[in-house]
Amino acid sequence: MFETAEVGNALEKAEFKRQEPKLRTALLEAQRGLAAADFSVVLLVGGVEGSGKTEFINQLLEWLDARGLAVHAWGEPTDEERERPFFWKFWRILPPKRKAAVLLTSWYSQPIVSRVFKETGQAELDQRLDQVVEFERMLSAEGVLLVKLWFHISKSEQKRRFQKLEKDAETRWRVTDADWKFHKRYDRFREVCEHALMKTSTGEAPWHIVEATDRRYRNLTAARLFLDALERRLEESRSKAKADHKPDHPKPKANSVIRKLDLSLKLGEKEFEERLEKLQNRIGTASRRLKKKGRSLTLVFEGPDAAGKGGAIRRLTQAMDARLFRLDSVAAPSDEERARPYLWRFWRDLPRTGRVTIYDRSWYGRVLVERVEGFAAAAEWRRAFAEINDFEGQMAEAGTIVRKFWIAISAEEQLKRFKDRQVTPYKQYKITEEDWRNRAKWDAYEAAACEMIERTSTEGAPWVLIEGNDKRWARVKILQSVAEALEGGL
Amino acid sequence: MFETAEVGNALEKAEFKRQEPKLRTALLEAQRGLAAADFSVVLLVGGVEGSGKTEFINQLLEWLDARGLAVHAWGEPTDEERERPFFWKFWRILPPKRKAAVLLTSWYSQPIVSRVFKETGQAELDQRLDQVVEFERMLSAEGVLLVKLWFHISKSEQKRRFQKLEKDAETRWRVTDADWKFHKRYDRFREVCEHALMKTSTGEAPWHIVEATDRRYRNLTAARLFLDALERRLEESRSKAKADHKPDHPKPKANSVIRKLDLSLKLGEKEFEERLEKLQNRIGTASRRLKKKGRSLTLVFEGPDAAGKGGAIRRLTQAMDARLFRLDSVAAPSDEERARPYLWRFWRDLPRTGRVTIYDRSWYGRVLVERVEGFAAAAEWRRAFAEINDFEGQMAEAGTIVRKFWIAISAEEQLKRFKDRQVTPYKQYKITEEDWRNRAKWDAYEAAACEMIERTSTEGAPWVLIEGNDKRWARVKILQSVAEALEGGL
Repeated sequence: MFETAEVGNALEKAEFKRQEPKLRTALLEAQRGLAAADFSVVLLVGGVEGSGKTEFINQLLEWLDARGLAVHAWGEPTDEERERPFFWKFWRILPPKRKAAVLLTSWYSQPIVSRVFKETGQAELDQRLDQVVEFERMLSAEGVLLVKLWFHISKSEQKRRFQKLEKDAETRWRVTDADWKFHKRYDRFREVCEHALMKTSTGEAPWHIVEATDRRYRNLTAARLFLDALERRLEESRSKAKADHKPDHPKPKANSVIRKLDLSLKLGEKEFEERLEKLQNRIGTASRRLKKKGRSLTLVFEGPDAAGKGGAIRRLTQAMDARLFRLDSVAAPSDEERARPYLWRFWRDLPRTGRVTIYDRSWYGRVLVERVEGFAAAAEWRRAFAEINDFEGQMAEAGTIVRKFWIAISAEEQLKRFKDRQVTPYKQYKITEEDWRNRAKWDAYEAAACEMIERTSTEGAPWVLIEGNDKRWARVKILQSVAEALEGGL
Repeated sequence: MFETAEVGNALEKAEFKRQEPKLRTALLEAQRGLAAADFSVVLLVGGVEGSGKTEFINQLLEWLDARGLAVHAWGEPTDEERERPFFWKFWRILPPKRKAAVLLTSWYSQPIVSRVFKETGQAELDQRLDQVVEFERMLSAEGVLLVKLWFHISKSEQKRRFQKLEKDAETRWRVTDADWKFHKRYDRFREVCEHALMKTSTGEAPWHIVEATDRRYRNLTAARLFLDALERRLEESRSKAKADHKPDHPKPKANSVIRKLDLSLKLGEKEFEERLEKLQNRIGTASRRLKKKGRSLTLVFEGPDAAGKGGAIRRLTQAMDARLFRLDSVAAPSDEERARPYLWRFWRDLPRTGRVTIYDRSWYGRVLVERVEGFAAAAEWRRAFAEINDFEGQMAEAGTIVRKFWIAISAEEQLKRFKDRQVTPYKQYKITEEDWRNRAKWDAYEAAACEMIERTSTEGAPWVLIEGNDKRWARVKILQSVAEALEGGL
């Protein structure tokens, strides 16, 4: 695929000078369009060492208004990066809508380099590339325009450039031992890159290969590819019909996993107290070993209002060192969160190794409240199942034990608890108008939950269904499950 | 000062049970008040090892609604923390308005522990404590309610507790070698803490010492101190008159540092090109050595609209590896930023070691546009000078070379440039209605700038005044200054 970038494209200085002002004006105009648009831009500049990626970016920063544009590159991972899934460091810098980021290294760099130097096998590379495709698909769907440029020069051109730079005392520093190491493996690098680019050139985010031998041709061509992609997207977003944000009220099935639960299960006080103490001790002991073992624990709590999430969570946190866990109660997103893909708010706060993170409501809001209330478009919540599975899969890959609890109660039990809340002084704050409104959509929420459980209960991140009418039963079952998950995972 | 916490305060179980529900209801009510208030809460729980800080926090989490409440503790610093000023990790977790954070370790922990183990001298401790007082004063002034609790137990009680825990197989893990090391140094620890608490017990953020021998007394007393502080602040914020947000238009002095500049200074094209290239080479070379030397470079650009900040910045960034620098163009804050002290947005993005950060406008907006336009109250911009000096002082302390450029132009030159922008296609975006409005307040902005330069030009972070009517002169002078700062600092 790189042959097309070794044909000798070049541009005379006069021609460059003639085209530059027009290009620059168009770039600035497109950038102003972006400043008012409903998407963000991530420009990936990859390619062969010595092909002038940095040079091009400097040129682009000169042509564009550098405000609202951030350049990123990653070297050796920091310990905070190492203690999180691979993609975390990229989520960290994801630009908000109306802004752009330029990536000089990216999620392609480490997988390609590792494979070139045979630190990883082909299967490992392919697995990572599959994740990359899913990641980019999700970004695109969530309003991130990805422009991927690949700068190519031939092996002999690379050698020529390194030698030329080395000759001049002023530029000698620019050629490192690593560069020559790469040069030696040029053919292998080319082969691995070809494979990677083939696999990841998708409809949403195609690769553009730029012949980078002639500097003027390279800069103008690369900038124009960026401009074209940006202009096309601006055009689309102008003409695009607003996504359809209708509430979705699925019908519950009679024989659903939730309806099949035996909500009459209960536990006596004495047995409860005994088992609670033992389980809390087990959880306390096991959770302290997480860090040493390089593991983390993530617990998700979902269920109808008044299902007893808070009470169950308290029985858990009582068992643990307060330094060890974080409780995240998920409420409305901030404007910074709204300006980015919906999983961003969870990625940004992803805990380091050794921690317990408890979510009182979670990313599943996407396929529950956002679906039922129409806050998310149908296309958005439909694809969310796969995106969430990816997300949790990456957590599990990074050593996180994930358990998700759906606490089920009957509609009658909920009514009883709502009424109880209204008369108990320190519980009144827990009951709002919204709770009553949600209750009216009981069936839709239950059906949405069933679909969620079906589509997102995975080996690495299973849903555990909890019979919640009896609080003691529910709490013990949850603690039992957490204790087993911890002990099994450590 | 700890004698008052060794008098044998205790609470019978029945009395505790009698008081608990009332306290709990009041805590929840205060928390609901906070959820609608214009401030945030940081609760520090410090004290002697074994005094039950974690136990209390768990109790508090049970009494309160754990949502909107985060618990933080820090262990060994991560490399990302080590590469930033001491206070960075605390800024990172600062809660937004309407939320609370509980700190189990804090900015007191490391300074006290280092002093106890004689890793630092008394002067070093005192210097840090002075910074702590300034930090807390700033937080308080910016709407953070600080509640500082100190749990005390006697030396013999500490020994008794450790021994008791060690006897039981279930709790043995809770006593570590470090605990016994602390116990050995109990008297010294007490002495250092007494000094630290004395120095940092201020009107805005006093310490409350809690006798922690009896668990019930400790929990109830500590919770009540927290409640009292929260209720008092809620009361204040209800009755408080809105801060006075009037525009402030200071009069310029005839003989100001800005007016004294010789704006006729200029440079010919040939000399400019020669010097530019040499300076860019020097900057390029020196900036690559920052990381190895454990230093960073922070450059601030301020000046009237059209003073030439963007053009000067471009000449700088041309000289550097795009991976090395970040350009931050400061625009309106996000809602997350608005909900926290105004310096938070700069702290959160503080670069790691080895980086160059360029601010096109900066935290000085507080004493320029926010002052002149009345976005900040008089008390806010007045205290900002000292707060900014602290901020930059901490950067310098952490190894950052700081230079701040005020690019001055004459009012006539600005008018000329505004008109030029209106007729040049790719410059039109640079001129807005707001620019014309600001121009009308030329004198006020100039006078505000003079006061800013006077109050914030420090040894470690000096202002460099640039004669900006001739762009070539300005650019070369800036690059010269950056090159010298880099070479001098490395």
